[in-house]
Amino acid sequence: MPPTLPPDATLGDAGEFGLISRLTELFPQGEQVLVGPGDDAAVIRVKTGHVVVSTDLMVEGRHFRRDWASAEDVGHRAAAQNLSDLNAMGGRAHSLTVGLAAPTDLPVRWALDFAAGFAAECDLVGASVVGGDLTAADQVVVAVTVLGACTSPPLLRSGASPGDVLALAGRQGWAAGGLAVLGRGFRSPRVLVEAYARPHPPYDAGPAAADAGATAMVDVSDGLLADAGHLAEASGVAIDVHTAALEIPEPLHAVAAATGADPVSFVLGGGDDHALLATFPDGVALPAGWTVIGAVSAGSGVTVDGAAYEGETGWRHF
Amino acid sequence: MPPTLPPDATLGDAGEFGLISRLTELFPQGEQVLVGPGDDAAVIRVKTGHVVVSTDLMVEGRHFRRDWASAEDVGHRAAAQNLSDLNAMGGRAHSLTVGLAAPTDLPVRWALDFAAGFAAECDLVGASVVGGDLTAADQVVVAVTVLGACTSPPLLRSGASPGDVLALAGRQGWAAGGLAVLGRGFRSPRVLVEAYARPHPPYDAGPAAADAGATAMVDVSDGLLADAGHLAEASGVAIDVHTAALEIPEPLHAVAAATGADPVSFVLGGGDDHALLATFPDGVALPAGWTVIGAVSAGSGVTVDGAAYEGETGWRHF
Repeated sequence: MPPTLPPDATLGDAGEFGLISRLTELFPQGEQVLVGPGDDAAVIRVKTGHVVVSTDLMVEGRHFRRDWASAEDVGHRAAAQNLSDLNAMGGRAHSLTVGLAAPTDLPVRWALDFAAGFAAECDLVGASVVGGDLTAADQVVVAVTVLGACTSPPLLRSGASPGDVLALAGRQGWAAGGLAVLGRGFRSPRVLVEAYARPHPPYDAGPAAADAGATAMVDVSDGLLADAGHLAEASGVAIDVHTAALEIPEPLHAVAAATGADPVSFVLGGGDDHALLATFPDGVALPAGWTVIGAVSAGSGVTVDGAAYEGETGWRHF
Repeated sequence: MPPTLPPDATLGDAGEFGLISRLTELFPQGEQVLVGPGDDAAVIRVKTGHVVVSTDLMVEGRHFRRDWASAEDVGHRAAAQNLSDLNAMGGRAHSLTVGLAAPTDLPVRWALDFAAGFAAECDLVGASVVGGDLTAADQVVVAVTVLGACTSPPLLRSGASPGDVLALAGRQGWAAGGLAVLGRGFRSPRVLVEAYARPHPPYDAGPAAADAGATAMVDVSDGLLADAGHLAEASGVAIDVHTAALEIPEPLHAVAAATGADPVSFVLGGGDDHALLATFPDGVALPAGWTVIGAVSAGSGVTVDGAAYEGETGWRHF
């Protein structure tokens, strides 16, 4: 972007190539990056003999609203949900690519703030943004791919056994509470609205669980019960969630009272905090940040306190 | 998707999880894939000590039209343009991820045919589709990330020196001719329309150029002159393209005659064939499929037959 562009310049004013160089300046490159942004492809040094890879799309109006979250928040969240997928394998990210499709009237400021938030979130785990793409579209779509590595063997969804305990790490239900507040046109409790706008995944908890001998893991992105269901199905086991073990933060009680909802429903159905759900052999000392919230037994499906759950269990993609 | 869904079922009818399992069946997994689709992330074995990575977005109405290309063609093209980015580094892909954002009324058939075309193109280089994402959006957006490796050192855009020759591999201008035809409402010459719908990148030419000692390389995706310009700028050299050396296929003469265009303009401006442009030291024996089409000298910018070019030089992203 030429320095003479006005502060309210749009992507259409800036053009692709000027904007890309401005964006690229926001992405520092780690020592593992042999070739960074700007060529046909990036080249990353891989010392571990493997690469863990995951990809996610975020669509404006569906996964975020520009009036509910700042561009910087959307950048944080886009990175966080992908970093969380590696966290759920017991891995840690080293490199990401990010594609941005956007209307030509999107302010350049929005794209730069988005990139700054994205870069800041990646910096939390020491990962570099090594490449991307930028193109015009009718609505904002963010496409992220994350690459990383595990130090312990990757933790799959399929390793849980009857007798294991179910454990949770990270905030859970906060973002769902924030979303409920925003959906009713309010902006407080502020802490919940901020939790929705910018999640805080427990990035150390994934590798720690793998190192501690967890048997299976999934990140909570569709909803606690929905993702517990994915884990139960992949492992061929039944899972029971014990609500007495779930922490209900005080602001969720307030939102529940104001909306007539059961506060536990935010915790059981929410999926935007990117908490981790894992199973451990009974008796294993859990790493810091992990709390037992249920049990694994022979069978199939997910129950809550031993019974079928009647509320919303998660996110429907179509 | 339950087997009882009607042939005209939409993504909204099928739901995400049923469709994902149907799509995943279309993606065979190579021996390098340690964990394939279905978990939070995939895990790929990497023996080379590095990974080459690139990402691209394709937006309906901008990069493709569903009435101009079949779903299978769009799948081929989405894979091809990403595989081509690795080709341009002298590399070869081993793994890809693909994200599909689509309206809920998109036919399931379209998504399945898209995936089949995508898988078939990946199979040309022996690469596996190891992960993806699927979500609702207002228009179809395809987000692809490709991972691979080089056997020779990666070929950057920045290595050309004065005295090098400029060489081209692959069909060039055919897709631009096809696009010109489609834009006027015609469907022939069929060979050009098909070239636009489904490119045939020269997948062996990239690694062969790297092995033969090429000094710089880029894939032609913005247009031959535009991408020659990227190479010239990155290398700090001037490039002259010799039109007498360009092959003008017979059908392009026909389209040019019918539209009043200069047939060379399709070759100089076209970017959808995913040809490769490389520089080699003068006197190096070029690998099969490569033709000298110009020369590198001290200076900057791109000229055609020694003079500035007045026509369209390439694709504008915004």
